[in-house]
Amino acid sequence: MTDPQDAIDAESATRTRQRDSRISERTAGEVQEGVPFIGAGPGDPGLLTVTGRELVEAADLVVHAGSLVNSELLEEYCADAEQVSSVGKDLEELIPLMRDAYRNGRNVVRLHSGDPAVYGAALEQMDALEHEGVPTYIVPGVTSAFAASATLRTQLTLNGVANHVAFTRPQGKTLDPDEDHIGEFVEMGDVTTCIYLGTHAVDETMDRLLAEGHDPDTPVTVIYHASWPDEDVIEGTIATIGEKVDAAGYRASALVVIGEAAQGTGYERSYLYGDWANGGSNESEADD
Amino acid sequence: MTDPQDAIDAESATRTRQRDSRISERTAGEVQEGVPFIGAGPGDPGLLTVTGRELVEAADLVVHAGSLVNSELLEEYCADAEQVSSVGKDLEELIPLMRDAYRNGRNVVRLHSGDPAVYGAALEQMDALEHEGVPTYIVPGVTSAFAASATLRTQLTLNGVANHVAFTRPQGKTLDPDEDHIGEFVEMGDVTTCIYLGTHAVDETMDRLLAEGHDPDTPVTVIYHASWPDEDVIEGTIATIGEKVDAAGYRASALVVIGEAAQGTGYERSYLYGDWANGGSNESEADD
Repeated sequence: MTDPQDAIDAESATRTRQRDSRISERTAGEVQEGVPFIGAGPGDPGLLTVTGRELVEAADLVVHAGSLVNSELLEEYCADAEQVSSVGKDLEELIPLMRDAYRNGRNVVRLHSGDPAVYGAALEQMDALEHEGVPTYIVPGVTSAFAASATLRTQLTLNGVANHVAFTRPQGKTLDPDEDHIGEFVEMGDVTTCIYLGTHAVDETMDRLLAEGHDPDTPVTVIYHASWPDEDVIEGTIATIGEKVDAAGYRASALVVIGEAAQGTGYERSYLYGDWANGGSNESEADD
Repeated sequence: MTDPQDAIDAESATRTRQRDSRISERTAGEVQEGVPFIGAGPGDPGLLTVTGRELVEAADLVVHAGSLVNSELLEEYCADAEQVSSVGKDLEELIPLMRDAYRNGRNVVRLHSGDPAVYGAALEQMDALEHEGVPTYIVPGVTSAFAASATLRTQLTLNGVANHVAFTRPQGKTLDPDEDHIGEFVEMGDVTTCIYLGTHAVDETMDRLLAEGHDPDTPVTVIYHASWPDEDVIEGTIATIGEKVDAAGYRASALVVIGEAAQGTGYERSYLYGDWANGGSNESEADD
């Protein structure tokens, strides 16, 4: 097979010259020719999409994200399929595996946790497969922040409390300090900041926010394994949450939410379901 | 019934004193007692969740977000249920409608477009219902940005291109100019900025970005009705997209994506599926 980065660069170059005709010819959610990259959702098997479920049920080979995908989902929808965890396997191993199965006429699906668009590392596999002649497409899913918000019985945007949402990750091996925008999002004051991939770094992230002068009493809520049977919610502040997460022993698989929206208090009713006459055109799609 | 804002304030106050026990006792996705507030997903019936579908299929009364929810979904899953559009109805009308149906033993579901956590105005209805003694809960869904990303065959985060995602809306009747952070998100350089509720204001939003000195050649992609049969993609830049959207005649129901990730080019393979040994702890959950 072609070196994966070379395949990515070649697909990128092709894409720059001419847009993939499937972008205009196919719609999101449509079942297409090839290997679907499916968002498995946050964990609960019922939070997989209807189409995702149908594709997983029909699969002969399911390559999944290991412990990031709830085993209950695999047992419920594809107990009879061959199941391969991608954990610890590099592209050089995964791509031939999926390519050869597809060429042999098997139904292959790739199951990512959450939605593949958010920290999913799906496109590199898709490009490498496409470069080998295997068509691919994405089936979107529910991201863990939405399950977390459902658990908290709130919204990530709330009138008069939070007007915007950021999905972000903290600095570390793959993110330089100057690419860490958590402090900037918090500084805006009306953004619900959802930190992915940061469970192991809650303490140092909060220490940085304190050093930058952010209000120590800003609410921070940590939702571990949203929608899983062992789901857990830890509530605190910038000053206190680090110690609480340490005490709980969570080092992965939690979402960290900074902002008041997590508490669902102090908001105002929208114009949407009242005083309708004063709503105006920018309210007409406010249910999106 | 109690005045809705008074009900919201009363529920807020209760919540501040003591957290709702259902937060710790129930998990996201779990079917609970009461009226579910369901994220219908972006449009395609197959992008509703498995649990959402089951609840809609069992419903006697479906209160939905009018033209924001694809009628194909209603026909496919609840053709025999009473269907009521919430469009043009205020809380004073919607709440007694759902309350009385629930009290009369009917299966009531509330169907929002996308996910209720993002610009959903769900919580005010939930609080007003809870204040009337009707339990409620949220079933999360797929937001339109994920369908848009699937259509574009890309990710909203891409290694070396975009490290973060913002869900935002432009200033207007419900958002003051100082609460409009679009320019700040774009300025960060590595954020994929997804503008909801801004189809009618693309031209003025882009004019503001130009006036602030942002690069006119920054890619802007508009996805109309992601996952619907009439889905459409318009590609341009900060300088050109306003005119293109005007020419297409779209005034609502499109997502505006600012940033290079929409093009899926020029990215680098992640550490996740290669050079695994160098990944380290902050990569261990990189599939989230």
